[in-house]
Amino acid sequence: MALVNENYLKLKGSYLFSEIAKRVGAFSSENPDKKIIRLGIGDVTQPLPDACIKAMHNAVDEMSNAKTFRGYGPERGYDFLIDKIIENDYLARGIQLDFDEVFISDGAKSDTGNIVDIFGGDNIVAVTDPVYPVYVDTNVMSGRSGTMGDDGKWSDILYLSCTKENNFVPKLPDKRVDMLYLCFPNNPTGTTITKEELKKWVDYAKENRTVILYDAAYEAYITEDNVAHSIYEIEGAKEVAIEFRSFSKNAGFTGTRCAFAVVPKQLHAYTQSGEKVQLNGLWNRRQSTKFNGVPYIIQRGAEAVYSDEGKAQIKETINYYMENAKIITAGLKEMGLSVFGGVNAPYIWLKTPDGYTSWSFFDKLLKDANVVGTPGEGFGPSGKGYFRLTAFGNRQNTIDAVSRLKSIKF
Amino acid sequence: MALVNENYLKLKGSYLFSEIAKRVGAFSSENPDKKIIRLGIGDVTQPLPDACIKAMHNAVDEMSNAKTFRGYGPERGYDFLIDKIIENDYLARGIQLDFDEVFISDGAKSDTGNIVDIFGGDNIVAVTDPVYPVYVDTNVMSGRSGTMGDDGKWSDILYLSCTKENNFVPKLPDKRVDMLYLCFPNNPTGTTITKEELKKWVDYAKENRTVILYDAAYEAYITEDNVAHSIYEIEGAKEVAIEFRSFSKNAGFTGTRCAFAVVPKQLHAYTQSGEKVQLNGLWNRRQSTKFNGVPYIIQRGAEAVYSDEGKAQIKETINYYMENAKIITAGLKEMGLSVFGGVNAPYIWLKTPDGYTSWSFFDKLLKDANVVGTPGEGFGPSGKGYFRLTAFGNRQNTIDAVSRLKSIKF
Repeated sequence: MALVNENYLKLKGSYLFSEIAKRVGAFSSENPDKKIIRLGIGDVTQPLPDACIKAMHNAVDEMSNAKTFRGYGPERGYDFLIDKIIENDYLARGIQLDFDEVFISDGAKSDTGNIVDIFGGDNIVAVTDPVYPVYVDTNVMSGRSGTMGDDGKWSDILYLSCTKENNFVPKLPDKRVDMLYLCFPNNPTGTTITKEELKKWVDYAKENRTVILYDAAYEAYITEDNVAHSIYEIEGAKEVAIEFRSFSKNAGFTGTRCAFAVVPKQLHAYTQSGEKVQLNGLWNRRQSTKFNGVPYIIQRGAEAVYSDEGKAQIKETINYYMENAKIITAGLKEMGLSVFGGVNAPYIWLKTPDGYTSWSFFDKLLKDANVVGTPGEGFGPSGKGYFRLTAFGNRQNTIDAVSRLKSIKF
Repeated sequence: MALVNENYLKLKGSYLFSEIAKRVGAFSSENPDKKIIRLGIGDVTQPLPDACIKAMHNAVDEMSNAKTFRGYGPERGYDFLIDKIIENDYLARGIQLDFDEVFISDGAKSDTGNIVDIFGGDNIVAVTDPVYPVYVDTNVMSGRSGTMGDDGKWSDILYLSCTKENNFVPKLPDKRVDMLYLCFPNNPTGTTITKEELKKWVDYAKENRTVILYDAAYEAYITEDNVAHSIYEIEGAKEVAIEFRSFSKNAGFTGTRCAFAVVPKQLHAYTQSGEKVQLNGLWNRRQSTKFNGVPYIIQRGAEAVYSDEGKAQIKETINYYMENAKIITAGLKEMGLSVFGGVNAPYIWLKTPDGYTSWSFFDKLLKDANVVGTPGEGFGPSGKGYFRLTAFGNRQNTIDAVSRLKSIKF
């Protein structure tokens, strides 16, 4: 009799986005004439940079000719892309990486999800709260969660609360944790921490032999100097951290799928008996056994992100989204709301007005302004009473949404 | 202290292909003037069908315009591709599938590797032997293997021997197994079984509540009528089998990356307490949590596989490879060797001549004919004394390789 992985049965369905879809669907069918503006899901709207388009056309043509055709590529990715990543994302910031410390993949979601494979089942996991649900769900699936409590927290996972009371800077854990997820600039709050704050986390990890799983998918949106683009800007971080990056949010690859993980060779975890094991080798084994690389065509597209033309085009698109963020932030502040994020990230996180929960605020915006956002409590218990809007819409929708919001009476 | 998944430490490196690379490298550097012909790795050489090339150019263009741009797609794949798969690969053979029973992915390697996630750790696994190493390695990684014995077998995995003595038709297990990997047409042996034989496996699975993991990546090469293209041609199979398919070997997508898995809703596995659980829901949860879909551009390329133009072009390429298979088979038979496969598959499996092991035969071919194949024992203990050649080369190389082989003195 084949048994299932019963950890999966602990998970509820993807409650947040299905509940949003349900409420929006009900509203739409009752109000078919209303034009709904969606500033909920973190998906981009602007087209790919021309440089990427050209590169992919060329690559498609290569696949049409036996002389230039590409079959199986290296599971870890092509040299041409890895070289560009190391040169532009790391060497340019003074960080040396070896070729075999970078692993090209189809997404930061895949990487941050699959990374749990190489870790022991008994590790204690910590997440900041609110949090990107993939970090939590994949640890539930792999048996590291314990049970769900009435407080909305898994019993074996440590939640590091980030609210306006601590300025969204999580406190160091008061106990040992083994795997620690950090995401800066943060999804969903749009906030970040300074290099000095990040140094404290690296030091904590060294002391406790914790592995930091550092999600830097939004690094391209950083505008302030004292915010690290890579955790490896912090001394000692190569001994404690895996970094996840993506082309989704800088180059608009959400539907094109390319990302990478950096697993430094100085980084170790341990056997039960205390023997050191390089995580680089384990991740390489995982990827070469369960993955066959990113399409050649897509890797050529990602390479073009680093061309002069590509860089200029990306900068323009990011400026466009960040102008949206300014428009949203200014509008919400005019409404007298407490607003966070939006400076180093395309997310705006707001405190709901007195008397409104995340969900009643959602309903109010949907009904009175026909604007869809994301209730903060969908991202974890500390998201209660908060609400996320994204700057990824097009300009006119963003302006219209803000003007509608401003007309609501609370 | 972060712990590693110690199951990973049980695995040796990818011994087979690294050892091949080492021996070929050594020979090449001693004999830089010799032109080596590689008929080892199962990678295609012919370009993508024009229909796929055109479709991908169109899709790239769509990504350059905000009006037609695609961001995140459905994790399980786009309707346009799933519809074509159901219509052409299943309905055309009398098999009804629901839309949500098909999951588009980036490869059969990913799917056959990741599928272990949704199963319990205590399941007993059976594989045919020789076998595609991913099935075994991913079960080692997830703790279902036990320890490696002197016979080259993992203690907790049941090996179903396939040799010329049983005409490569594995015997039903003499004990209960919970997860059973079958691959027909088979990699590496190139052999297959009849529908009547396959029916015995489906019946066995029903009786024992076994889940069959059916890898049909080579179905496009089937030429004989009494061989099933899909396991669902067999009555009752939807209650016991997951099927894996790929565009790699029919349409040349090894470097383009698209595949799919079928998880019927009638298929269940069980909790420890005997409760039935639909595997479809678990796989959907796995994929939507750890995967973000196949690139839009690539899915449009895969869709074109099912156009009239695409079908005609694929047929031509498959005929081309199968003509290679005939050339290789005829040549080896003329040499007096026992040859298998090559009729419903692009793989030729041969018994090494008396006095030769898989590896000494490899060395002989490399030195005397400068031809690289794959030693059978790399695929499992029952591959000892066998050798794999592939029909995926180009025509001239294939003809030259055979002519060189025929000149060897054994």
